[in-house]
Amino acid sequence: MAGQIDAKLKALGIELPSPMQPIANYVPYVVAGDLVFISGQLPAIDGKVAWTGKVGAAISIEDAAKACRQSFINLLVHLKAATGDLDRVVQVVRLGGFIAAGADFTQHAAAMNGASNLAVEVFGDRGRHARTTIGVPSLPLDAAVEVEGVFRIA
Amino acid sequence: MAGQIDAKLKALGIELPSPMQPIANYVPYVVAGDLVFISGQLPAIDGKVAWTGKVGAAISIEDAAKACRQSFINLLVHLKAATGDLDRVVQVVRLGGFIAAGADFTQHAAAMNGASNLAVEVFGDRGRHARTTIGVPSLPLDAAVEVEGVFRIA
Amino acid sequence: MAGQIDAKLKALGIELPSPMQPIANYVPYVVAGDLVFISGQLPAIDGKVAWTGKVGAAISIEDAAKACRQSFINLLVHLKAATGDLDRVVQVVRLGGFIAAGADFTQHAAAMNGASNLAVEVFGDRGRHARTTIGVPSLPLDAAVEVEGVFRIA
Repeated sequence: MAGQIDAKLKALGIELPSPMQPIANYVPYVVAGDLVFISGQLPAIDGKVAWTGKVGAAISIEDAAKACRQSFINLLVHLKAATGDLDRVVQVVRLGGFIAAGADFTQHAAAMNGASNLAVEVFGDRGRHARTTIGVPSLPLDAAVEVEGVFRIA
Repeated sequence: MAGQIDAKLKALGIELPSPMQPIANYVPYVVAGDLVFISGQLPAIDGKVAWTGKVGAAISIEDAAKACRQSFINLLVHLKAATGDLDRVVQVVRLGGFIAAGADFTQHAAAMNGASNLAVEVFGDRGRHARTTIGVPSLPLDAAVEVEGVFRIA
Repeated sequence: MAGQIDAKLKALGIELPSPMQPIANYVPYVVAGDLVFISGQLPAIDGKVAWTGKVGAAISIEDAAKACRQSFINLLVHLKAATGDLDRVVQVVRLGGFIAAGADFTQHAAAMNGASNLAVEVFGDRGRHARTTIGVPSLPLDAAVEVEGVFRIA
């Protein structure tokens, strides 16, 4: 029997791909007690970063929100591997959002909402999280955004 | 009877305003076991960011320290909401400081001290925290600084 | 009898110096339950930042990796002070890497590997960590890199 969160993902039309391995000598996640720390995720699809360049220039706010959503999907991929069953997730604790942009950019929140909205769509009240969003001049592989997460499991 | 930390805040002339709600789809704080994760706080007063622009240019180091202090006050607002009573705080665990500045800026520590000093003024030894401070090109709403925090409660 | 991790450090030719004190009003680490949060570490040697300037410009990728390795050594200094005995470390939970670089920089992962590789050399499987690496325009004292860490202890 599929889990409730798996069913929710299916209803949203989201199929979790195979986990993408880190691009360097670290691991996708670490479980420490009831907390799961997941490495910063780039907005990759099929192992390739799908949104590159700067938000507010090459990348529109709308596309940046889609990129953050994709980064959150990639967090879910590793969270499922960490837990075995996403129904074990009792809380999305904290998301960190990094938006590659110039000095005059101000719409970080609108971009990061792509991740936050999906967290709440998938997990409901358990998806309401603390969040920090900042601008950065550059990200690995020229990614437009990066999202990291801490989750609490039963 | 007012709590000891409430009394300390009063002695410092600090009145905690009503919590400002997040500017997007997330929550101000999440309690996970005995840790409280609080969302990144902008230096807002009465719901409006009071220090905008870049530190070292439009904003002096002294004003940046005041802005970090205000961000810490905004952390306290949510910490009080999370705990009900600030006397329950047993440790300021970690503060993250984000200073909007150009590539040649080097005085991040002096700016962030505005938050750190207030943490120790308010909580005494329990206010001594781990800290990471970095420069960023831009922050939400053109804020000059942003401060996030993790706290431990009884 | 020296601990196993101390012996490993000796075999790697790494002597942990005396802890460098924070450059401002905070502490090097906080222990919260079984987690140790360590402040962001600059690549300092003998109390002086040894790699300054921007990675990809004044600082090569290779030197940036060395700088990240040194920042990790500085994390170890405080981790030893926090634990008394590095053998008590059961997991490197999360490393945060901050690479001072321009908007066109893309090799953050290669730089941060200097820290990640040493974590695994020193702690073996317990050294495999979650990681977030981002670019920043500037760091305290013009440091080229900064690395922070969360560790789990027995």
